[in-house]
Amino acid sequence: MRELANGGLEHLSLNWATVREKWDLAETIEGCARHGISGIAPWREPVHALGLEEAGRRIRDAGLRVSGYCRAGLFPAADEAGLRAAIDDTRRAIDEAATLGAECLVILGGGMPPGSRDLIGAREQARDGVAAVLPHARDRGMPLALEPLHPMYAADRCCISTLRQANDLCDELDPAGEGGLGVAIDVYHVFRDPELDREVARAGAAGRILAFHVCDWLVPTRDLLLDRGMMGDGVIDIPRIRGLVEAAGYDGLIEVEIFSRLDWWRRDPDEVIRVIAERYRSVV
Amino acid sequence: MRELANGGLEHLSLNWATVREKWDLAETIEGCARHGISGIAPWREPVHALGLEEAGRRIRDAGLRVSGYCRAGLFPAADEAGLRAAIDDTRRAIDEAATLGAECLVILGGGMPPGSRDLIGAREQARDGVAAVLPHARDRGMPLALEPLHPMYAADRCCISTLRQANDLCDELDPAGEGGLGVAIDVYHVFRDPELDREVARAGAAGRILAFHVCDWLVPTRDLLLDRGMMGDGVIDIPRIRGLVEAAGYDGLIEVEIFSRLDWWRRDPDEVIRVIAERYRSVV
Repeated sequence: MRELANGGLEHLSLNWATVREKWDLAETIEGCARHGISGIAPWREPVHALGLEEAGRRIRDAGLRVSGYCRAGLFPAADEAGLRAAIDDTRRAIDEAATLGAECLVILGGGMPPGSRDLIGAREQARDGVAAVLPHARDRGMPLALEPLHPMYAADRCCISTLRQANDLCDELDPAGEGGLGVAIDVYHVFRDPELDREVARAGAAGRILAFHVCDWLVPTRDLLLDRGMMGDGVIDIPRIRGLVEAAGYDGLIEVEIFSRLDWWRRDPDEVIRVIAERYRSVV
Repeated sequence: MRELANGGLEHLSLNWATVREKWDLAETIEGCARHGISGIAPWREPVHALGLEEAGRRIRDAGLRVSGYCRAGLFPAADEAGLRAAIDDTRRAIDEAATLGAECLVILGGGMPPGSRDLIGAREQARDGVAAVLPHARDRGMPLALEPLHPMYAADRCCISTLRQANDLCDELDPAGEGGLGVAIDVYHVFRDPELDREVARAGAAGRILAFHVCDWLVPTRDLLLDRGMMGDGVIDIPRIRGLVEAAGYDGLIEVEIFSRLDWWRRDPDEVIRVIAERYRSVV
């Protein structure tokens, strides 16, 4: 397991959404560089706002790695046209991620389309969507990171809720291990998974852990989406999970992604980053 | 699959918590009888308030079955004394359930004790707790129904989050199939489980489905605990899951359990029950 306590921030990446209410992408790039953070995870909206080429240039000039590009997928749709549109959009996201030099593109499965109660059908569409974009991702050299989200988002955001589902999908779509497809592991989504240890090891053995995200689970959690906690403020045993992930071979960036409408989004991002750096060294 | 559309309410049971803000237990017993509902699921607090013997007498006089008694378990504790207290309390709950003539006692795993980040340890305590009370449950002829709760409650309410965990625990503690131990399946907690079909069949094959609960998952869900929906108002394919459960051999009561601070708890319980009866016939 890597030593974080006494070193620099060479394994730390900041997901833009952590400071989204105060900083645009240009400010976030500058902030990461100013604090000595090594990576950034931009979202598509602020990239488009700044301009794709400009965003890539600024990230490179700041010497930042891109731990992941957020986000695409969201395939399930009410009709074939909707699914095709999601596939086309994900192909564009692959191109954007390549331009930015991202280490992976984060793929969410998507939820059920409005009015649907067919979760199994949604999962089939998610599989079909990933299958449809995988060749383009390989052409562009852009790995797709399937991110299982917490089961509380299964209905409306991501029908892929467990690491086992994501691993199964990787096996199904990449049976020969050609690559270009893997998983993103976020402690918030997986800490409660009774199959976690086995499935992390399984993903690692296949060389498929493409990203590792941290934040914390607060008790009580006041909002299903926007009440994530700062590392150390909740109940997740983050070092244990990081240990599993690193024992499985992951040596990439540790990305901090905190959606916190009631707390961290209201604070000065420079303060937020100082706390992140302190917690990164002490409780991650 | 049983026909519900044109019959009476002979398979319907009402969990007291559905009307808890307006009716005490005596009123709920009268209400169930008045509306032709066949069963009731009382909680311990209102039973204690009415008096155990009196509650049992009124339920019997009303001709109601008791689909389950809520609830006990909640074993994980900060120390041995806490675990012993939870075990003792669960033994008392077994006695109470027997006095009420309940068809099962609902057992929750419990969450991590305050300050703990040891979810694996909590699961071990839950296992030890169930093991400790199982002989007494068998002596009293009171089946224990392990109810896996949605993973969003794993930290603070129930470390048993999946039907697979509950089935595994049954296999571990009752390897010879002596009985007295099974599962409660609530659509709210399990609808999103990718292993649902297999694990329902597994529980049924072992004769371990002791209870079936319905409500609905709302999109959006505004509160992690108290925003359950009325059947038909959300995204759960309830008939599909009831089909799985009944195909697995379950022929017991269908219990409605809705925690709804923002909606149903505010309404006249007679109206709530009329809607339940209508939805029971049309969307369950």
